[in-house]
Amino acid sequence: MTRVAVDAMGGDRGPETIVQGLMDALSTREFEALLVGDEAVIGPVLDRYGPHPRVELIHAPHVIGSHEAPSAAVRRKRDSSIGLGLGLQREKKADAFVSAGNTGAVMAFSLLTLGRLKGVSRPAVAAFFPTKKGFSLVLDVGANSDCKALNLLQFAIMGSIYLSYSFNKARPEVALLSMGEEETKGNDLTLAAHDLLRSTELLNFVGNIEGSRILDGVADVVVCDGFVGNAILKFGESIVEYVSETIRESVSSGLKAKLGALMLKSSFQTLVKRMSYEEYGGAPLLGIDGVSFICHGKSKARAIRSAIISTCDYVEERVNEHIREQLAQLSSQDTSRGGTGLCQEGQG
Amino acid sequence: MTRVAVDAMGGDRGPETIVQGLMDALSTREFEALLVGDEAVIGPVLDRYGPHPRVELIHAPHVIGSHEAPSAAVRRKRDSSIGLGLGLQREKKADAFVSAGNTGAVMAFSLLTLGRLKGVSRPAVAAFFPTKKGFSLVLDVGANSDCKALNLLQFAIMGSIYLSYSFNKARPEVALLSMGEEETKGNDLTLAAHDLLRSTELLNFVGNIEGSRILDGVADVVVCDGFVGNAILKFGESIVEYVSETIRESVSSGLKAKLGALMLKSSFQTLVKRMSYEEYGGAPLLGIDGVSFICHGKSKARAIRSAIISTCDYVEERVNEHIREQLAQLSSQDTSRGGTGLCQEGQG
Repeated sequence: MTRVAVDAMGGDRGPETIVQGLMDALSTREFEALLVGDEAVIGPVLDRYGPHPRVELIHAPHVIGSHEAPSAAVRRKRDSSIGLGLGLQREKKADAFVSAGNTGAVMAFSLLTLGRLKGVSRPAVAAFFPTKKGFSLVLDVGANSDCKALNLLQFAIMGSIYLSYSFNKARPEVALLSMGEEETKGNDLTLAAHDLLRSTELLNFVGNIEGSRILDGVADVVVCDGFVGNAILKFGESIVEYVSETIRESVSSGLKAKLGALMLKSSFQTLVKRMSYEEYGGAPLLGIDGVSFICHGKSKARAIRSAIISTCDYVEERVNEHIREQLAQLSSQDTSRGGTGLCQEGQG
Repeated sequence: MTRVAVDAMGGDRGPETIVQGLMDALSTREFEALLVGDEAVIGPVLDRYGPHPRVELIHAPHVIGSHEAPSAAVRRKRDSSIGLGLGLQREKKADAFVSAGNTGAVMAFSLLTLGRLKGVSRPAVAAFFPTKKGFSLVLDVGANSDCKALNLLQFAIMGSIYLSYSFNKARPEVALLSMGEEETKGNDLTLAAHDLLRSTELLNFVGNIEGSRILDGVADVVVCDGFVGNAILKFGESIVEYVSETIRESVSSGLKAKLGALMLKSSFQTLVKRMSYEEYGGAPLLGIDGVSFICHGKSKARAIRSAIISTCDYVEERVNEHIREQLAQLSSQDTSRGGTGLCQEGQG
């Protein structure tokens, strides 16, 4: 049975939300949970649900705050819920880790504790962006501030495999985020990446897209460097949050507005739901030799539940094995073609 | 009196909208207009308003479509409304140019026809982003897909001067768009740019900001490379458009919803108005040896009017002269310090 370590201390809404999400996941899916966090805090929360045969509490004395510098956390807080939770995979006691805590710390500890998957030059953080058609997986959204073309190629392959196996999507469409849709436009990175993406049959590459087309859902996977991905993710989230807030405010602003809002309730709900990042749970750190899922700090129980179920899918569909295989295939194709040497970058 | 050349053929809403915007501007501001476009199309539109003593029609036989490749347009359509309209500044017949047409073509023709301002290594396209506090000027949003630190420094100076003189803003706050707010975080470009921005007293530099903080209006000027700026501008616009559309749809979806919407009308209007890029008119291409304003293709008459008035401010406040002066000052400071040579980049 898949064993998922869950960071009980991560997330802005506190352990109650995490535990609620976990309990919901346990009621719909077969897996074992290792709930990692401060016993004194989680114990009483767990007690409310009574003992569960598939939940084990793992005490972690330290917590990493959401604004703590990851570099410092990695040095000083190995026995935090994130540090210990990820360590469980190295000790073969868990198959996956989920956290809604400090993203940078999860990334840093994941790399440190689990290392890179064979063949991967740079792991990437993926994020689900809601679109008019459903969602698109965008990566990298923050692990790599400077990228090479090969990194983007690997992001594309990892994202495609993840959607193929975990979401049963046949030949996911991959797009390259660029400036202008023509292949001759973009920056040095995207010009080089365009050629690489087009050159492999492992991908269903549909070409370049501009930022304006992400929301249209023209591709299942959108690749970009982590700096750009981070900027659009954060800017986009801030707009969605602002819209939701303004709608909420206007709804609570007076009797007439309240009545009006009541009449429009379903429209509002559709809008906010469609645009909400919460619906999609967490997304994986792709390219590490293990399984580490990152949830939004504002995740509600529903998002935590989805994320935990997603990690089970990831483990059971053996996504990492498929990534390793396809990257080896890419590398051997490259060698048989005379080798650009590109596919070996960063694998010393 | 300031003479503004107006591209009558640009913009998705057609010449009627441009002419309407121009007439509105003429009624509130003293300036002379040179309306450039196809006589057969604009003549009849102008006739509806009757002859105006401060409007002259300049015939341009060609139009550049919004999806035409700028490189081809520059070669083949010199007698387009954009080509001829910008040419008027070289012939000393106009002081400024405004267009809601093909942005790439306006950029290309501006550079070709007017050239760079002395001391500027790379001109930048600025854009106004609505924020919770008003607006922020973000640049570059598309002229430069790859930038050096010096380019960002010059963008910061040009943006500051523009807001100082055209908007009467004392010591505008300048932020650097980055990944993480700490100065030690970001990509190679922002790490180098951070040091440059901090090192000059010409700027009121407030540090790095993440994409999520733009909307909070924490800075008057936000600098980034054109690739990132373009991505966030386009992605942000698509979200705002989607929200506006969904609200409009829900309002027209049934009697109950209509009634509800009517009751919420002012809330909606505030939201859409606050987030609308149309309110802010056009933004300049900063760093060229002339004045060229770019409006959104979807501009309504109100935006065209604002943009035209903005060009008058730009000309009358002699923004370009101030830019030239401050860049010379920066360059001499650099030389007196032993000179990094950086300030001379690209000025051969």
